[in-house]
Formats: sequence, structure tokens, C-alpha cells
Amino acid sequence: MKNKVRASLIRGGTSKGVFFDENAFLKNETERDSWLLSIMGSPDPSGMQLNGLGGGISSTSKVGLINRSERKNIDVNYLFGQVRLKEPKIDWKGSCGNLAAAVALYAIDERLVHSQPDGSAQVNIWQANLNYEIRVKIYPPNDKRFWISIPGVPGKNSAIYVDFINPSPSLLPNNQPIHVLNLPNGENIEATLICGANPTIFINALEIGLVGDELPGEFDFQKIEKLIQNICTEGAKIMQIPNTSAVRVAWVSSPKDYTASDGSVILAMECDILSRISTEGRVHHAHTGTGAINLACAAKIPESIPYKIVKNRTHSGPLRIAHPLGVMQVDANVVQEGKTSKWIALNSGFMRTAKILMVGNAYI
Amino acid sequence: MKNKVRASLIRGGTSKGVFFDENAFLKNETERDSWLLSIMGSPDPSGMQLNGLGGGISSTSKVGLINRSERKNIDVNYLFGQVRLKEPKIDWKGSCGNLAAAVALYAIDERLVHSQPDGSAQVNIWQANLNYEIRVKIYPPNDKRFWISIPGVPGKNSAIYVDFINPSPSLLPNNQPIHVLNLPNGENIEATLICGANPTIFINALEIGLVGDELPGEFDFQKIEKLIQNICTEGAKIMQIPNTSAVRVAWVSSPKDYTASDGSVILAMECDILSRISTEGRVHHAHTGTGAINLACAAKIPESIPYKIVKNRTHSGPLRIAHPLGVMQVDANVVQEGKTSKWIALNSGFMRTAKILMVGNAYI
Repeated sequence: MKNKVRASLIRGGTSKGVFFDENAFLKNETERDSWLLSIMGSPDPSGMQLNGLGGGISSTSKVGLINRSERKNIDVNYLFGQVRLKEPKIDWKGSCGNLAAAVALYAIDERLVHSQPDGSAQVNIWQANLNYEIRVKIYPPNDKRFWISIPGVPGKNSAIYVDFINPSPSLLPNNQPIHVLNLPNGENIEATLICGANPTIFINALEIGLVGDELPGEFDFQKIEKLIQNICTEGAKIMQIPNTSAVRVAWVSSPKDYTASDGSVILAMECDILSRISTEGRVHHAHTGTGAINLACAAKIPESIPYKIVKNRTHSGPLRIAHPLGVMQVDANVVQEGKTSKWIALNSGFMRTAKILMVGNAYI
Repeated sequence: MKNKVRASLIRGGTSKGVFFDENAFLKNETERDSWLLSIMGSPDPSGMQLNGLGGGISSTSKVGLINRSERKNIDVNYLFGQVRLKEPKIDWKGSCGNLAAAVALYAIDERLVHSQPDGSAQVNIWQANLNYEIRVKIYPPNDKRFWISIPGVPGKNSAIYVDFINPSPSLLPNNQPIHVLNLPNGENIEATLICGANPTIFINALEIGLVGDELPGEFDFQKIEKLIQNICTEGAKIMQIPNTSAVRVAWVSSPKDYTASDGSVILAMECDILSRISTEGRVHHAHTGTGAINLACAAKIPESIPYKIVKNRTHSGPLRIAHPLGVMQVDANVVQEGKTSKWIALNSGFMRTAKILMVGNAYI
């Protein structure tokens, strides 16, 4: 058995992931996963992943397997693994949109893609878990005019635009913007289910007794953990997908002023909708990228829960989503296909930054 | 400016740190610290260190600068830096005992020390912040008979014994086992102050309204944060040292059954004393190594607060300290010097494990 493997630890958006050449692993998936679990320090009953590269929260317990793609107009394939903290398990059913920005940096750093003389690059990624294309545009990294900051990450880094191309053959189960979830306790809750970049279930915060301005550091997630699980179970049934950690619940509400986790004040006038999204055992510290993509798509579909909140907004620019660390802007081009009237997203994207943190050998 | 520097990310005990060759940095300390802050992702208003290698808690936001030592019988010098999460600051005034085990692995991996054919090694480290010797013995890493588990880290790794040699010229300020701290609110609290491996202040848990079985995930540290700060301020005055993050407060109590953070049950009969130690903004998830060393020393000094709790214990083996993740055993040889009757520790040590997680280049 090898005891080390070449790896790159990279931040993408508000996530961190460890990236590997997919070919560095044997084709035996059980053995591959066991190596990756060991590298990341899972399972760990305390959830802290002290014995590995994982950071002890879902946003920093991610891996990506990358290889050169043989698909037309695609540079690399991106297989995403969400490494569980306390269980010996990696979920390969979802994706991480934030890390798509990191995949692009990895592809350039590992010379799978060539950049322009000014460092800019176009990287076309195949999201191999969910079978769609992600087009990533890297702005000239040494030109500080293109440096931006994103909420949740201090300082400025070079801008990276991440565009999800038609991420789903059909955004809505049965093409319906609203489904009623029948929960085990007899309650019925209205939900918008989006099978987009990742499956996401949107609930109006008020319907589950929340406001929408909850902060991860202050909010006791255990109070709603069972409810969230039940919503995921019922939603996954309707979407006809397995109920894995890739299924997230987001509760949304109308803009209001609130204080973000870093102490800054977010004004109602700076955003179009408040969103808080669930992640393993907690409220996400910012927002999942895929959840943001889905929210921007949902907000364009009449009668959906997000649509009802944003329908009176006075601009037609990107959707401004207020999360615990600030506001992110997300584009979406959503249309109904001619014959079937099915709602699809032509594309949807957002601006991110990324940073290579460490490159070398990770120990198994 | 360079944009990367050779680095090793290593777990030592229940901490993680990033280690560098001290000579890789310019002698300008301001520039060196600015590079290290950037590598670790500090300062970050959210405290998550997403833009660097830090793990967002004090136990995983540590750096070590290592070089070959010119001291007699010493292999390497170990300069420890505690990287603040939210402030642009590295504290160079304390040490991390857990990471001493990691320093030994680094020294062998970087060929600063030679191991025996069976992989075992003796590494003599100079603690350069505090000027004392740490002798680290690495048991044969490939011989599974020497593999152990330590509380807080899942699985087994090769045993490493970390022995602090005479870590302080005088353990007690004014050679007194008890000092009364006069707090700003008029309250007086009895404390045992140890200027040992790191400065630590021991309080009887009951005296500050606590039990001693508190768990980091459940206990609201904010309730006592001001009190802890006041205790540190007063304690530092008496110890005549600066009040940095290296000064910790531990509250101790008599053995009782409790459930540890990982769900396991710790029985009163398995331990000699319960201890909870403060760290930046929270209760430490396990126990600091230097705090454990100090506690084992204090427990041997009559009339100290730890001594009063353990004086009726029925064995003379290592002190069994129960922390939020389990029980650690700590040796201490404490004596009074002839002429002055000053209390000193000849040596004090504990068994740890460590693991190299990643070696390569860290990006600034």
C-alpha cells in the first residue's frame, strides 16, 4: 500500500477541498474511499478530523477527483466527494459549486489546461457526479483591477466566474413550482423542490417558525434537525432521488436588516431575499453554491416560494441572496421548453474567488 | 516576494500545526509574520480561516519554525507561534506541548535527525520560546505493539513520549501554592499559579460556579469569558509575565462520571481529577499539553488546588486527567531545591501520537 499521494489543498469560494488526479487511485472504489477517508481524518466520533486534512465542518471536508476529459469541448472531469465527519462514508451523489472555482485553478496548476499569457483562462469542467457542464472563466490573476472580495473570505483575490450550463433536464418534479410535503407528525408544509445543480428544498422561513436571519453561531440547529430530516425524506421521495447529504433544505424570507456573522450590518435594501441553508448538523456558515444556483433559478419561476418573495423587486440584475456572511449575486437564465413547457435553466452562475493553499503529498 | 514556501502540516496529539524551516523566512520578523498569517488565513473576521491552512480553532491555528540547533545535546530548536484567528497577530510567547510530538516527526522527515533501523528515534528539542528542553522518544513506528490511541484522536498511531525537562526555574510565584486573586468586581478567588511549560492558573470549579464536567459543544463559554479574562489579568500580574493568549485558566474538580464529547462514558474510577482549560473564546476540546504538564506538577505540591483534590488518590502512577474527550495520563517529578526550597519539576511528560498529514509547498 502506498502511504502518500499527490494532492492540492485549495479554497474555492467559501469551501476548502483536497484535489487529486483520479488516476492516482486504484479503480477499486472501496479502497479508494478508504484512502480518502484516512487522508481526511474521517470517521471521527468528535467530528473534528484532527487526524487528517479535513477541517471538521462539511464545508472543509470535501475531495475532488480530477482527470483530463475525453468529452468534446470539455477540459477536465470533476468528481466530487462529500466526506462525512463521523461516519466512514463519502457521498458521491452531489456536487459543490463553490469548489468548481478551485477545480479550475487545479487544472491550470497541474497543466491540464493552458492559461493565456496574462494568466487568464477558460476552463470547461464536466460535473461527473451529476452530468452537466460548468464553464469557469478565470480573470487575469495579476491584474488587481479584477480582484474582488466575496462574503465569508477576507481580502481580495482574482475574480473567477462559475457558470453552470443547463444543470438539469428538468428543474421541477412534475414541472410543479409547489409541492405539499406531508410530514410524519401530520403537518403539511409547502415547498419548492429544485433538482438543479444539487437537489434543494425551499421553505418559507415563517412556515417553520423561523425568521430567515438566523446565524450559525447563535442558532440552535438541534431544535429543527428532526424537521429538516423529515423535509429531506419527503422531498427526496417526490424528486425520486436517494436521500443523501446532497439534499439540502433552505429557508427563505423577505429582505430585512440583520447583523452578519462577521459583525457587519446587511441592509434590506442591499438584498432581494434572505436564505439560510442546512448542512451536516448545522446552518451553513455562508451559502452552498449549488443552493444559490437553485435559488436564483427558482426565483424566476412564477408561483415558487422564492418567486413570491422576490416578485416585487425593482431591478432585473442578478439575484442578491443574503446569507449569514453577506450577500452573493447569482445570475440565472430560466426558460420553459417549447413542447413540454418544462422549466429548464439555460445557465446560471456567480462570481467566486479561489486560492491554492498547499500542494504536495497527502499522507494516507 | 516569494509566493510559496516548503511546509509540513502535522498533527501532534490533539493539535495540528504547520511547520517550516526557520531559515526559509527573512530575518525581518514583521514580514515573516505577515507571510505566516497569509498562509494560515488570518486575520478572518469570521474566524474560520477559509483562505488559509488554519482550521478555524486555536488548536489548529499553530505554526512551528524549526532549525538545526547548535546547543549541546540538542537536535533542533522549536519556535512556536499561536496564530490568532480574528486579529493580525501571532503570539510567540508560549508553547504547544502537543505539537512537540509533531516537531519530532518533522525533524526526522526533514532529515535533521536520524532514526534507528526500526524507525525509532530520540529527538532532543529546545523550546525556543520558553528556553527549556523537551526530550521526545519515538517508538518503532512499524511495530504495531507500540501503537496506542489517545483521547480525541480516532484510531491508533505509533507511541511518542514527550518529556519536558525542568521546564521552569521556579514553578510557583513567590514559591506559594495558593494566591488570592482580587477581581475587579470585588470578589476574591483562590488560585494556584504555575509558571511551568506555559503559564496556567488553576481554580476549583466550584468556586466559579462550575462543575468541571463541562463540554465545549454544550457549554456557553461567553458566560464566563469576562471572568476568565479577569483571572488571567490578575494571574499574569502575580506571575510578572505579559497577559497573552499563552496564559490559560483551568478549572478542576473531583472525579465524577460524565459523558465525553464523543459520546463515551468516563467513570470517576478511571481518573484522578477533572480539568477543563480555557482557550481563545472557548473551552478547549481536549486539554492543552502544557496545561496537563502543569496540572501534574501542581498536583504534587502540597496545599495547591489540584493537590487538595487528588491527595487521597490510592495510586502513585501518572496523574489521570479527565478532559472533554477522555483521560490522559501525565507523569511529573517535582522536588524542592535544597537551599531555597523552591519547587521545581525535574521532568514531566506524557504519551502522545502524531501524524504527518501533508508535505509540500504552502502558498502565501
